[in-house]
Amino acid sequence: MNYQDKALQAHKKLRGKITVNNKDSLDSLEKLSIYYTPGVGAVSRHLAKNPQETRDYTWTNNSVAVVSDGSAVLGLGNIGPKAALPVMEGKAMIFKEFAGIDAIPIVLDVHSADEIVSAVKAIAPSFGGINLEDIAAPICFEVEERLKQDLNIPVMHDDQHGTAIVVLAGLINAAKVTGRSLADSKIVCLGVGAAGTAILKLLYLYANPKELIAVDSKAVISSQRNDLNPEKQGLLKFTNSKDIHGIIDDALVDADIFIGVSKPNVVTKEMVKTMNKDPIIFAMANPEPEIQPQDALDAGAAIVATGRSDFPNQVNNALVFPGIFRGALDNGVEHITNDHKIKAAEALASLVENPTKDSIIPSVLDKRVAPAVAKIIT
Amino acid sequence: MNYQDKALQAHKKLRGKITVNNKDSLDSLEKLSIYYTPGVGAVSRHLAKNPQETRDYTWTNNSVAVVSDGSAVLGLGNIGPKAALPVMEGKAMIFKEFAGIDAIPIVLDVHSADEIVSAVKAIAPSFGGINLEDIAAPICFEVEERLKQDLNIPVMHDDQHGTAIVVLAGLINAAKVTGRSLADSKIVCLGVGAAGTAILKLLYLYANPKELIAVDSKAVISSQRNDLNPEKQGLLKFTNSKDIHGIIDDALVDADIFIGVSKPNVVTKEMVKTMNKDPIIFAMANPEPEIQPQDALDAGAAIVATGRSDFPNQVNNALVFPGIFRGALDNGVEHITNDHKIKAAEALASLVENPTKDSIIPSVLDKRVAPAVAKIIT
Repeated sequence: MNYQDKALQAHKKLRGKITVNNKDSLDSLEKLSIYYTPGVGAVSRHLAKNPQETRDYTWTNNSVAVVSDGSAVLGLGNIGPKAALPVMEGKAMIFKEFAGIDAIPIVLDVHSADEIVSAVKAIAPSFGGINLEDIAAPICFEVEERLKQDLNIPVMHDDQHGTAIVVLAGLINAAKVTGRSLADSKIVCLGVGAAGTAILKLLYLYANPKELIAVDSKAVISSQRNDLNPEKQGLLKFTNSKDIHGIIDDALVDADIFIGVSKPNVVTKEMVKTMNKDPIIFAMANPEPEIQPQDALDAGAAIVATGRSDFPNQVNNALVFPGIFRGALDNGVEHITNDHKIKAAEALASLVENPTKDSIIPSVLDKRVAPAVAKIIT
Repeated sequence: MNYQDKALQAHKKLRGKITVNNKDSLDSLEKLSIYYTPGVGAVSRHLAKNPQETRDYTWTNNSVAVVSDGSAVLGLGNIGPKAALPVMEGKAMIFKEFAGIDAIPIVLDVHSADEIVSAVKAIAPSFGGINLEDIAAPICFEVEERLKQDLNIPVMHDDQHGTAIVVLAGLINAAKVTGRSLADSKIVCLGVGAAGTAILKLLYLYANPKELIAVDSKAVISSQRNDLNPEKQGLLKFTNSKDIHGIIDDALVDADIFIGVSKPNVVTKEMVKTMNKDPIIFAMANPEPEIQPQDALDAGAAIVATGRSDFPNQVNNALVFPGIFRGALDNGVEHITNDHKIKAAEALASLVENPTKDSIIPSVLDKRVAPAVAKIIT
């Protein structure tokens, strides 16, 4: 049976992958009177006077909402809130398994930036953090930015920063293995949605690479394009300093690193052959990579990473978001900064003691990962 | 140690009374691939095509949001969302303990009817039901009405209908014990917020009592009042048919039944003495009743009920909401109707096999209650 059939069967059997449990039983009038009325009134009165103590008396010290409007789910696109719910429940499972966090899937029946921001702000006092998920670009950028400004709990759009952090961690080790410096590298990123944009920004901040080139589904992001939305225009401030034009084939010539967060099978062996010696290929499209790993290796790639668990070097956000929120909740951190992201990538990279071409990223099952990431969120 | 101190201590120790657990572990790449990517993609794709099957593949068959804006919490008034959170967590515990329901506390940082309705509609696809809680009158009426119209999952404002159902159950048995019919009774309700309004409506529907009189903090609701909001004006259609004027003292003369959902200590022994022989007193103010039970009994009351667990005949909504939502979730009921409410009250009343003056309402710990209520929600 393949994963698709197994998944359908397992989901239908469980009818929901998470459940809410009580931390104590309610088997006596005494306990009912302590945890509910009349006793709970004293707690509410106390918090009305001392709102800053809310996290000491409620689950907000350990609860995170996993929020999506279902507009950009996995490789499936805009499938809406209900169809997105199994993904958010899965994310909640990962939060619990790897970081002990109580995560609650919240799928939204609204889709404009204004409406999403309003809904999330309205429910924010219920939680200790907000993990945004699978919200389409460019709306995701505005939503995250506004929520970060307006809320004093950690907000992170995982498709952006989770991905960017794992990619940076992998590149740190890939550069080591191939004897490169990221600063001296020519790096091409194909796909400039949520993930691509965040990857480009984080690479720029971390390494300021010699050449950093963004390519969308049409062409290289350059000053000659007159069809760029404000977010893509913003990329011109720190990418494509030579202002080259052309398509992905042109961009890849002499490149050291290819980063794909686009579509399956859009990169050929011939294109890889035009890259610099021992190129690094991160082909993370869903459900199939931009180029099959064996094809990339046959064409001379020194290292290949994908989003899949059945190939070496899996780029999986589950390496990041549990630890980020664990650290933020435990250390009272209200904002995830660029500095946090870079330190998280470095912490992740350093868990691979002897990087090799088939081991640049820790395993998602490695229980050291979440604590190592959490530790640097201070 | 009193309940207040015990509650503060217990809450500070637990730091949140509920927790989210996984129904299966994520200890292998196989399980990660089934419950999360790539497997979960098949489930999302299936639900995108068959949205009506969402409850078979997600937790919406068993999840209820407990939603409050913190504007009318217990006897504490408008204390805001954060201070309301411990109450909503307590409610979630009760949902789990008595009905096995996964309830999630959602406290809202918005307070107008429009904003509350928008926020709840936005998050509604995440849940199988919406339990509204501790939202101030008259906004609560509009919020519930609009949500019932706009959503196809059960929505119930517990302060209204939970209370009304338990009161009706108690009155059915109290009438039996005192040899009365509710139809021939004069019934006075002091307090016409969420609970009072719903109690009056349900009593009218169930028994169309001879006289039904509503009294707010100022006076009897009568045609001479020029300070009534639309909800209170609406009560005139079926209350105070003789259009009497005056205050609570006047209303209680010759009354058979007093129902208090108002403030502590506003009814005197002298007032009870002016009521008909063997009057029934439901004094449910928080944290102290409108009249102390012993005082009411000394003044001739045949039966006294309160909201407290330390006196006989506790009117506790926990007798109702777990069963109502259990039944609605299990039987695919999208709307809680007046017929459901009446049948729930009758089911509750019938669980007391031999009603006496000290036993007209089942114990909140009676595990037969939720299944008995759930059974009639079809």
